[in-house]
Amino acid sequence: MEKKDRSTELNLLKTARGQIDGIIKMIDDDRYCIDISKQVLAVQALLKKTNLEILKKHMNHCVKTAFEEGQGEDKIDEIMLVLDKYYR
Amino acid sequence: MEKKDRSTELNLLKTARGQIDGIIKMIDDDRYCIDISKQVLAVQALLKKTNLEILKKHMNHCVKTAFEEGQGEDKIDEIMLVLDKYYR
Amino acid sequence: MEKKDRSTELNLLKTARGQIDGIIKMIDDDRYCIDISKQVLAVQALLKKTNLEILKKHMNHCVKTAFEEGQGEDKIDEIMLVLDKYYR
Amino acid sequence: MEKKDRSTELNLLKTARGQIDGIIKMIDDDRYCIDISKQVLAVQALLKKTNLEILKKHMNHCVKTAFEEGQGEDKIDEIMLVLDKYYR
Repeated sequence: MEKKDRSTELNLLKTARGQIDGIIKMIDDDRYCIDISKQVLAVQALLKKTNLEILKKHMNHCVKTAFEEGQGEDKIDEIMLVLDKYYR
Repeated sequence: MEKKDRSTELNLLKTARGQIDGIIKMIDDDRYCIDISKQVLAVQALLKKTNLEILKKHMNHCVKTAFEEGQGEDKIDEIMLVLDKYYR
Repeated sequence: MEKKDRSTELNLLKTARGQIDGIIKMIDDDRYCIDISKQVLAVQALLKKTNLEILKKHMNHCVKTAFEEGQGEDKIDEIMLVLDKYYR
Repeated sequence: MEKKDRSTELNLLKTARGQIDGIIKMIDDDRYCIDISKQVLAVQALLKKTNLEILKKHMNHCVKTAFEEGQGEDKIDEIMLVLDKYYR
């Protein structure tokens, strides 16, 4: 299988890393709790987006291939274990 | 496509409905906030389980069929829209 | 402490119960998985709203009183245990 | 108000940043989607823990002070807006 284009995920992760640096600085500057908390939520939103992107490509590539090879149900079980943790 | 076995989902939903009746009674009895809140969380856990079950069957049946018919990517897009709401 | 006004929570819970009845009917009618899944998500949103309402009143009444009586930290610990489950 | 001890939050954030570096490397190494996804979930769990810690201190310090000064309800409204985003 060809290597997937991961530029979207890489950009999201690098942005998330930069924002974490910013939050560490906010704490050093003793900024207001709720403002810090909102920034942490923003990073969580980026990571969520990253994970949805990973999962989408996984389904369109690996799961598709697995169904073609008659092993789709194992892949689905694997995804469900991840979704169980994603989602409340 | 044959009709799916939905007994797991039906049982979960009927249990959830019974628990909601119980929570309404807890409120009528003026029970402690945190105890009520925990029961609401328990119903949310049941609905989460219901939704994972629905999604699992959807992937093993509808998505499988769609990939076989060359329309898998549309189905994946549709699932991703639902997952986006599921998951933070 | 006077009895809290719980009409908002009761209305939300009764609506949730009605929607669950609707979902059970959707399953009996063999409706499309994704449509069922979206309705389950809608009920989860109602329960989330219910829980936020319960928590808000809890903080404005019980937690306030607890801080006045010097026992606020115990109440906060109790809330954090609930939030830990709420929130991913 | 004295400066809060933020060492727990700082350690969690620095660990999260290190894990994001690791995930970027996993992507460069073209590792399996589900393994990458699990690592993203692990960072989200760290950020969740960070936010709960921030919120707990906020409630034990700022909210306590606000209730003492008769402005507790405004603080609670502010927290509820954050919780609304936290929690599904």
